[in-house]
Amino acid sequence: MKKELHFEINEFRVRQAAVKKEMARRGIDILLLSEPPNQNYLTGYNAYSYYTPQMVIVALDREEPIWIGRFMDRVSATMTTFLAEENIRAYPDTYVQSTVLSAYDFMADIVKEVGGDKARIGVEMGGYYYSARAHAVLTRALPLAEFVDADLLVGWIRLVKSPAEVGIMREAGQLADVAMQRVIDTVEAGIRECDIAAAIYHQQVSGTAEFGGDYPCCPPDLCIGERSIAPHAAWTDEPLPDSTVVNLELSGCRHRYQVNLARTIVVGKPSPAFQDLSEIAVEALNVGLDAVLPGRTCSEVDSAFRQALARHGMEKESRIGYPTGIGFPPASGERTASIRKGDETVLQPGMVFHMMPGLWLDNVGITITQSFAVTDRGFEPLTKTPRKLFVK
Amino acid sequence: MKKELHFEINEFRVRQAAVKKEMARRGIDILLLSEPPNQNYLTGYNAYSYYTPQMVIVALDREEPIWIGRFMDRVSATMTTFLAEENIRAYPDTYVQSTVLSAYDFMADIVKEVGGDKARIGVEMGGYYYSARAHAVLTRALPLAEFVDADLLVGWIRLVKSPAEVGIMREAGQLADVAMQRVIDTVEAGIRECDIAAAIYHQQVSGTAEFGGDYPCCPPDLCIGERSIAPHAAWTDEPLPDSTVVNLELSGCRHRYQVNLARTIVVGKPSPAFQDLSEIAVEALNVGLDAVLPGRTCSEVDSAFRQALARHGMEKESRIGYPTGIGFPPASGERTASIRKGDETVLQPGMVFHMMPGLWLDNVGITITQSFAVTDRGFEPLTKTPRKLFVK
Repeated sequence: MKKELHFEINEFRVRQAAVKKEMARRGIDILLLSEPPNQNYLTGYNAYSYYTPQMVIVALDREEPIWIGRFMDRVSATMTTFLAEENIRAYPDTYVQSTVLSAYDFMADIVKEVGGDKARIGVEMGGYYYSARAHAVLTRALPLAEFVDADLLVGWIRLVKSPAEVGIMREAGQLADVAMQRVIDTVEAGIRECDIAAAIYHQQVSGTAEFGGDYPCCPPDLCIGERSIAPHAAWTDEPLPDSTVVNLELSGCRHRYQVNLARTIVVGKPSPAFQDLSEIAVEALNVGLDAVLPGRTCSEVDSAFRQALARHGMEKESRIGYPTGIGFPPASGERTASIRKGDETVLQPGMVFHMMPGLWLDNVGITITQSFAVTDRGFEPLTKTPRKLFVK
Repeated sequence: MKKELHFEINEFRVRQAAVKKEMARRGIDILLLSEPPNQNYLTGYNAYSYYTPQMVIVALDREEPIWIGRFMDRVSATMTTFLAEENIRAYPDTYVQSTVLSAYDFMADIVKEVGGDKARIGVEMGGYYYSARAHAVLTRALPLAEFVDADLLVGWIRLVKSPAEVGIMREAGQLADVAMQRVIDTVEAGIRECDIAAAIYHQQVSGTAEFGGDYPCCPPDLCIGERSIAPHAAWTDEPLPDSTVVNLELSGCRHRYQVNLARTIVVGKPSPAFQDLSEIAVEALNVGLDAVLPGRTCSEVDSAFRQALARHGMEKESRIGYPTGIGFPPASGERTASIRKGDETVLQPGMVFHMMPGLWLDNVGITITQSFAVTDRGFEPLTKTPRKLFVK
């Protein structure tokens, strides 16, 4: 079976060392990683198998992590991770959606095997793939262990990308750009909303002549007309009217690294007020981007953006940016820093954010955004689609 | 804001009555539904917003459920549910990925408001969207309430579809059929794997001239060549060789109802042994389907299938079928019945299953499957793609 690793093995070792250092600092002996992006980060594992219980164990005193999953996904673990076969463990199918057997008991046995029965064990309490029941079964099966919340322990390390990771994210950005260009070419009066969505998916995955894309973490947000103020609504089968506003957020995903991009496209002639609003949105976005500098905080970047908005008498409730990187459904962003008031995260080269200051006013909205990597001297845009209102 | 309901309001009332009846039987006063398909089933709610905390509360003594979500998704709740505005509640953005505020505290306050501080509260312990932390916050905020596991309470009710639901699933089946036809037309030596995946997505979402599709719950499983034995592997950018095996599982999704379909497509000439294997797979599948009858158990259907396999000296480890219906990522199937040995679920008209007896032998696999609804007299196939090996 050919190995499909997208990084040098040494890069995985560096990641592991950073995680172990933080474990040691917190006094955690064993870390149970239930989040698919964290499993991918530490081992390379990638398959659409995380709808069944799956875990990566990092033990402070073991060299390699252990992957545990369903028997039929063992071959994907062999293929996509650097792990030795002895560190790939699989439970039989009888555990899958069984009312009597729990895969978490199977996992607890492996925790005991690596000396974890009385250990201090970190778990990802707020993760998407660590259910209340998973925690209940593990704590019952390991009654002498001490469980501590290690949610985002790996997440904060992932926040700063390596040069190799930023390289992959540049490709993800290209995928987002070609998908957006496809939409700009496609959108016109009479086309059905579902056909726009279909074109986006096609281009996201088909990609460029040089490389294709992965499945995205989430569907495109395609918010049209009256529904442009419903940011996460599903698309319909309705044809576009002669005059409407399309607010679209899409992504490019390369080896599970995700870069997001949103634009507003007007079919017909935008009103002068809407055109003005778009110019304010772009101006504030550019001011926000120009405020990006290593050593500044997320809050300071947010403040620069808000001051630019305030000059036009406007304000915005929600945060204006989130980090992206390795992404698995259902989340498009990482769950650590936010570009918003009060977030004192200090920017460092290698951090990647999507600055997405959607402006929603009554019944219209504008979303013109920019994904970027923090560099030594400012920011590097990861997509090249012009920051402007598109009119068709 | 135009309402986008896909069922008569009375159908929601019937669903609610069934859920309340089961709540009463179990002595549950308040049910907290964290699973997006259950939220959709009881209220109609549909938006890609469940990556932030979201809940539907069903209280035995209240007429309507209450939806709770993020402020910016409130408009989607108004649009896609039948709920009165007073039963749509939203938390501000300061709660989103905050280290100090939890949306589950906000939810607990609403539970108290409806008299739940000393209630017996059902929660979905094994759900995908009920994290260990959600449970910890809610139980701390409601110290006098009694929490009981009500996972799959709604799931078992959803297992039997109404005629209106089966009607939508027929459309989902059509979407799966046109997507499979697109692949059969597209697959040939030299085409990149990512371009096959792109064509699938395009057709799933673009659909037919009459209607389009929703985003699927999960990416297509596109397992090619050596990787045909890795059922959930990601696709690559590699071109198909002159001779290879493509194992493909895809879906059609209409108004979030999902119908799955898998076929094996051979590029080049299949070996006689592989051709034989495919005929055994189809024969056993047909025997399994013919065993479907109201009153029989899942285990009996499984047994008929296994006997057909055994006549050829073969056996299979994993279950051969799962129910589908309303689907949200990450799960393609419902988590209740399985067609497997020992599952004593009794078939009833309106149940929908995907019978997917993939045969995996050493380094080759065959997946020829059939989604069907149980009828009064047997089964109704929900897809029309012939059950056979396709050769290109």
